[in-house]
Amino acid sequence: MIVPSTLRSCLRAHGRPISTGRFQLPPTIRQILSSPEVGETVAVTGWVKSIRKQKRIAFGVLSDGSSAVGLQAVFLEGLGERVKEITNGTSIRVRGSIVKSPGAGQDKELHVEEVEILGTCPPDTYPIQKQALTPEYLRDNTHLRARTDAISAMVRLRGLLMRKLDRYFERQDFAYAHTPVLTSGDAEGGGEAFRITPIPPSSERPPQTEERDFFARPAYLTVSHQLHLEALSTALTRVYTLSPCFRAERGVTRRHLAEFWMLEAEWGVARTDDPRTQTAALCDFVEGVVKSVVGDPAIIRGQDVDVLWRHREHDSVPEAERQKRREALVSAVTSDAPWPKMSYSDAIRELLKSDQKWTFPVRWGSALQSEHEKWLCETLVGGPLFVTDYPAGIKPFYMRANSPAPGEEEVTVGCFDLLVPQVGELAGGSVREERLDVLKASMESKGMNMDGERYGWYGDLRRFGGAPHVGFGLGFERLVGWVGGIENVRECIPMPRWAGRMVL
Amino acid sequence: MIVPSTLRSCLRAHGRPISTGRFQLPPTIRQILSSPEVGETVAVTGWVKSIRKQKRIAFGVLSDGSSAVGLQAVFLEGLGERVKEITNGTSIRVRGSIVKSPGAGQDKELHVEEVEILGTCPPDTYPIQKQALTPEYLRDNTHLRARTDAISAMVRLRGLLMRKLDRYFERQDFAYAHTPVLTSGDAEGGGEAFRITPIPPSSERPPQTEERDFFARPAYLTVSHQLHLEALSTALTRVYTLSPCFRAERGVTRRHLAEFWMLEAEWGVARTDDPRTQTAALCDFVEGVVKSVVGDPAIIRGQDVDVLWRHREHDSVPEAERQKRREALVSAVTSDAPWPKMSYSDAIRELLKSDQKWTFPVRWGSALQSEHEKWLCETLVGGPLFVTDYPAGIKPFYMRANSPAPGEEEVTVGCFDLLVPQVGELAGGSVREERLDVLKASMESKGMNMDGERYGWYGDLRRFGGAPHVGFGLGFERLVGWVGGIENVRECIPMPRWAGRMVL
Repeated sequence: MIVPSTLRSCLRAHGRPISTGRFQLPPTIRQILSSPEVGETVAVTGWVKSIRKQKRIAFGVLSDGSSAVGLQAVFLEGLGERVKEITNGTSIRVRGSIVKSPGAGQDKELHVEEVEILGTCPPDTYPIQKQALTPEYLRDNTHLRARTDAISAMVRLRGLLMRKLDRYFERQDFAYAHTPVLTSGDAEGGGEAFRITPIPPSSERPPQTEERDFFARPAYLTVSHQLHLEALSTALTRVYTLSPCFRAERGVTRRHLAEFWMLEAEWGVARTDDPRTQTAALCDFVEGVVKSVVGDPAIIRGQDVDVLWRHREHDSVPEAERQKRREALVSAVTSDAPWPKMSYSDAIRELLKSDQKWTFPVRWGSALQSEHEKWLCETLVGGPLFVTDYPAGIKPFYMRANSPAPGEEEVTVGCFDLLVPQVGELAGGSVREERLDVLKASMESKGMNMDGERYGWYGDLRRFGGAPHVGFGLGFERLVGWVGGIENVRECIPMPRWAGRMVL
Repeated sequence: MIVPSTLRSCLRAHGRPISTGRFQLPPTIRQILSSPEVGETVAVTGWVKSIRKQKRIAFGVLSDGSSAVGLQAVFLEGLGERVKEITNGTSIRVRGSIVKSPGAGQDKELHVEEVEILGTCPPDTYPIQKQALTPEYLRDNTHLRARTDAISAMVRLRGLLMRKLDRYFERQDFAYAHTPVLTSGDAEGGGEAFRITPIPPSSERPPQTEERDFFARPAYLTVSHQLHLEALSTALTRVYTLSPCFRAERGVTRRHLAEFWMLEAEWGVARTDDPRTQTAALCDFVEGVVKSVVGDPAIIRGQDVDVLWRHREHDSVPEAERQKRREALVSAVTSDAPWPKMSYSDAIRELLKSDQKWTFPVRWGSALQSEHEKWLCETLVGGPLFVTDYPAGIKPFYMRANSPAPGEEEVTVGCFDLLVPQVGELAGGSVREERLDVLKASMESKGMNMDGERYGWYGDLRRFGGAPHVGFGLGFERLVGWVGGIENVRECIPMPRWAGRMVL
């Protein structure tokens, strides 16, 4: 486990003091490629992405998944027999020296002096062939699909986004909170929660009543961490989480998964008697999160995002249009210009003024449908758009009521949806109703009882030192899809689950 | 949202360039207290931890949960009527100047010039009273218990540990991977998995067969992310996750939860025909993770760990013993001396040599019981201990077989358990069996079929470019308990779930 001295100095130069010795793993291909120096002898393990054999010499590309770019390897004379066995997908360990590459397209390459075959890969049956594979085929081979360029880039991008998000929330002094996946709540009455039962997995008989009572009450998989985050926010003020959520939605679309990840945050704010001002500040904060994280050159100008946008095998969008979309994305996340905000009432007015033919009627008091959101954001504004202050009747019980404003037929609430091109709703949030009596009335109007066992605790958060607070949720797979130009959310998570389908 | 200039310079000095303007939240109490300067006017929102009212002036402590230490607030004359309403737990917003504190115990305090009451807190019914509250009582009030010093310190410690762990794995070039919670696997045959059913939450009738088939096959909550991480490791080489796991264990102990978090990592290694060498390197790596993260002064010398160790209201351990334990912990995670490693066979020998009376017999081929682990680690070694190379018969199918060694009656596998004082098993891991035929035989010996639908994919990971790899899992709540000296794992997670109990 010896780290070559040039790598050590390189890693130090990149601000990462590297501890040597028994705790340190050897350098990855990414680390080797990002080192400025040549001449070192290194040993690397990886999978052969391609190999071209000539009489005395062979040229290959080796990937260990640490980087979007593989390591060019020249197999020198004398390795003869071993090299014959190497095919695409073979796992090998090579030792050799890093030299300046004479070829175009790479700075350096590895001159292989020793090669060891760790795992062969039968070329006839290997599921990940060189030719283009459909997304559907790769979903059926989920266990191997991270060996493709696009899926491995997506997995790395997720990790990178997660890290940048955490750094951002840390700077804003948020605590990361582990809120529960198992919950006694039934999805705010949404009716699409999974319920859990502890039964022996080998049993084929239906669950018995007593077995369902593991927790002495029904238990569900959470559809949102918001209410539990609110409880922690009532003590720690600023909390956030990036956690799995679950929805038993039977509708199969390119935007929905049964298991998905959400970034959710809650924080206390100064009192304001005008939630509209708070909502505007909330939108600003969310814009800051997305711009700081996605706009970071390591992401938006990074190799993984580049691989994802250039991955076009099964994309129905023409190249010119795709290029336009990518430029619009870069501009949206790197520009200093604030993203526009528009009230729901103004959005309805704009929709009514347009000469579009709508499948769903446009009417104040109805939810905005995908076609409406798409038009507002892609056609009217041409970029990210905050729509704010929706009618109370189409939003959940916990949103804070606004005072009336012109153009509003009924009560509206201090909330927003963030719409982005191609994806639709990327994030949504609101000022939370902090007034006990108003909250109680709002819950009753939706058939919920704040004094009952199920929601009594939520009322307590207001009863005892209740404080004004706001929060939002952001769909992590949708963020990945937007940033990487990925059409279907199933290619935005390593192992997707949706109605009717779960491999592995 | 104005950041005082002194705070800005302080935050910059701490290596955190702070963006001002509409994206930036105002400073928290932690940020105010860590700024070296005084004289600024600040506005702060928080909960009153205590208040002592005198005739013309009042002294209070304000907490916003950002720090283990609250902000001393002096309510000056002229605030009369408002201050009368303030009781413990009241949410207030104050404005005033930060001045040097004449009192002992704090560097600075806030001279309050304006106070606004955001949420009152009825003193008679407030569940979080000043006197000591039992852990059981606080569990019944989970939604409010993060307002206590110990629980809020624990929540912050979790977030801090998570961040330090991620930094460590990033330096070692691991990708963070989001492996699924919903899985088709049945817990390696463990039989204690939760099963999920999509049913309307309002329904009281038992689930119907067709409703259980949401995914067209049975679905479980994962008990470990290992197998799925192995699939990603076969493409990305180094992957890790910190994710929720679930076990429907009915045994109620201070060490078990139905929902718990595990740090799990998998990575490729150079081939070795001696797994024992690989196991030793794996132990070294795990020691590096724990020492680098826990031994970081921000954690082991941090205020939150200090609060947790000094929180003694319901602790049965004498003060002197507790002090000794804390010193032993600090020494274990900050010392350069390697933690000892001992083979299972040697451990059995030591246990047989001891004159202890065991409840469970000590016998080569049987699992080590808690009493054995406790003695090995607390009495024999007096600190963290790796026990390695257990008999294959008592370990899962995926561990790599060792070649025989003296003192071993049957085949052993390349694996370890990390035992630490008071907690017991903190982590466990192994070299994974990379040889297809050996793996197949191992699975068959445990009644599993590698060619079947359920595990065929796991065989594919070896069939196609299989590479030697290792991995481990570390119980996150147990880590929190060890670092914070917390007796029961239910006080190591914000909202605990265990057999028979789930509030919220």
